[in-house]
Order: sequence, then structure tokens, then C-alpha cells
Amino acid sequence: MEYHEILVILTKELRPARFRHSREVSRTAVRLAERWDVDVEKARIAGILHDCARNLKGEELLACAKTNGLSLNEIEILQPALIHAPLGAILAEQRFGISDPQILQAIRRHTLGAAQMTMLDKVIYLADCIEPGRTFPGVQLLRELAEKNLDMAVLAAYDQGIRFVLDGGGLLHPNTVEGRNSLLLEMKAKRHGK
Amino acid sequence: MEYHEILVILTKELRPARFRHSREVSRTAVRLAERWDVDVEKARIAGILHDCARNLKGEELLACAKTNGLSLNEIEILQPALIHAPLGAILAEQRFGISDPQILQAIRRHTLGAAQMTMLDKVIYLADCIEPGRTFPGVQLLRELAEKNLDMAVLAAYDQGIRFVLDGGGLLHPNTVEGRNSLLLEMKAKRHGK
Repeated sequence: MEYHEILVILTKELRPARFRHSREVSRTAVRLAERWDVDVEKARIAGILHDCARNLKGEELLACAKTNGLSLNEIEILQPALIHAPLGAILAEQRFGISDPQILQAIRRHTLGAAQMTMLDKVIYLADCIEPGRTFPGVQLLRELAEKNLDMAVLAAYDQGIRFVLDGGGLLHPNTVEGRNSLLLEMKAKRHGK
Repeated sequence: MEYHEILVILTKELRPARFRHSREVSRTAVRLAERWDVDVEKARIAGILHDCARNLKGEELLACAKTNGLSLNEIEILQPALIHAPLGAILAEQRFGISDPQILQAIRRHTLGAAQMTMLDKVIYLADCIEPGRTFPGVQLLRELAEKNLDMAVLAAYDQGIRFVLDGGGLLHPNTVEGRNSLLLEMKAKRHGK
């Protein structure tokens, strides 16, 4: 499905604020993709579709995960909102006909991050954090970093996310921690020219 | 081996500052054990022995881990100092004749924490954080919490440790994150009377 066809469907299906957010993530992802030499069309599509399962409620997310054979850990069962990312990748394929595995992976990873993220994964993860509608403390620093050093920006976004969970006394998802560790090791290897 | 025999050996083998720290951890562990109805003698022994492998250097720790068949993850290979805890449990058994699995487990878990910590594990983990020689910001709050609510104190210690790693741009060990998640779920279950 083409971008404009997806837009038509999402305008109807997503709540207005969610639709605006998705469009801004797509625009931000396009800009980051241009800046960091990532496939712009893939960034555009992944950005607009990243939250396509976000309007599902807790019970619906759990039921949908079961139908699609997603294996969930204890944290995801307690916080079903987290499932919207892997389920979004499934919906993007099934409903919107997206078959590109890179786009689907970027959608799947956009909330928690993951070990060994691709450039496209990083662009979508960051675009979701820094699109113009985001107002949390520190977002401006992330926006500036995203222009200068993509890895540093992703690392700062991981840290900000982990601190947010600590502040709220919430559970830390292992994917985020593995993602951050993996990124640190990747940055170290780059510094040593490996 | 009895406490006073262990003391004689450690006085010779540990550097003076490490020996002082070990004695203070043992004393603090005894006080916490009395407060929280944990076996005082086990706390005393685990406390005095928790750092018995701490004077080994990086290469020695790695070699010793290999000899003893410890499987190490990437973080432990990069930061061998972390190995002193599981290796301490092995030394406690082999050199100091400690066979009690609860004591050995508390030594093994004292640095990183773990999922499903016992009361003794928690006492040793906390005693190591709050003994009188510790001066990091926030330690006084941990000391007060440790008197009022052991779980809250361990949670605060986990959080403080994770923030410290984030501040330093270091790798987060999965055991610590699993330990914190496990503790949060345990506290939630207790609140709901399970």
C-alpha cells in the first residue's frame, strides 16, 4: 500500500491526536533519514504506521497477541500497551500489505528498542521520541543530538526512558536494557575502528 | 570455619581498607538480620566473606572464573571486577569451608542482586551498600529505609545503582534489572496479600 492510501485509512481509524503524532513521526523520520543517509521511503512508511495498533485497548491487545501467536513476557502481560509495537508490525503486514522486513522490524522495535538496531530502527525509535509534539524535559537536547550524532541521541533516549521508568517505580523491559548495552558496545567498537 | 578463624585469615589477605569494609558489612548485616528476623550467624559469616575474592585483579579473576567453570557474559568479560561476587562464593566454600547454600548464594548475589532474593540475600546486598564507610549521595536515605522497610530499601539501592551506571555511561547488567523487576512484582504481590 502507498503512503497516501495508508493516510486515508489512518485518518479514519486513529484518534485525531494519534493521527497527528503518526504524521509528525513520519515527517521527523524522513528528515532524520535524509540527514543520516537512510532509505527515506522506508522511514516515511515505518513512521506513519508505527502506531497503527496503538488504539487497541489492553484486552484487545492481549487477545490480538494470542491470535497472532506472539509470546509475551510478564511485563508485557502486565502492561499490554507495550504490545502495540510488535502487533503494529503484524497489522502493517496483514492490513496495509507492507512486506519489507526492515520496515516491519523498525515498527516492532520502536517502543522498547532492541539489540543491534539498524539505522532505520534508530531513526524510527528517535523520531517517535522527538517529533514536534513531544514536550518532556530534555526533548530539546535529544533533538539537537539527533542532528549531530544518531547513536548518542539513541543512547540519550534509552537513558531518558530508563530514568522515566525508575522515577515511576515501573518495570524495566529487558529489550531496552539489551538495546542500550548493545548500542554502547557498538559505539565502542566504532571508536576502536572495528 | 568459624567467624574468628575467618577474621584471622582475612586480616592477612585483604588490604586494610577492604578488611575494614568487610567487617563493617558483617556488623551491618548482623544488625539488619536482628531487625528483620534473619539468621544472625549466617548474616555475620556472609558479611565478612562477601568480598573474599575482591583483591584479585582483572586477569586473575578471569583465569579463576575459567578454572572454576563460571560462564561469563560479555559485560563480565569487559568488567571482570563483577566476577568477584560469584567467585567469592566459590572461595568461601573451597578455602573457608562454608557449605551453607544460603550463605554462598548471598555472597554470589551481593553486587548485582538477582531475581527472587531471599531475606538473607537482601540483608547482605543492603549491608554492602550502607555500611558506615559508604559516603555516596543518598546513602543516609538508604540507611533510614533499611530500618523501616527492607524491600523499599533494596529497591532504592537497585535504583541508585542503575542511575549510577547510567550517569557513567556504563553497561547495565541483566541480573540487576531482573532483580529489580522481580522485587517490584514481589512487593505488588505482598500488597495484594498473595
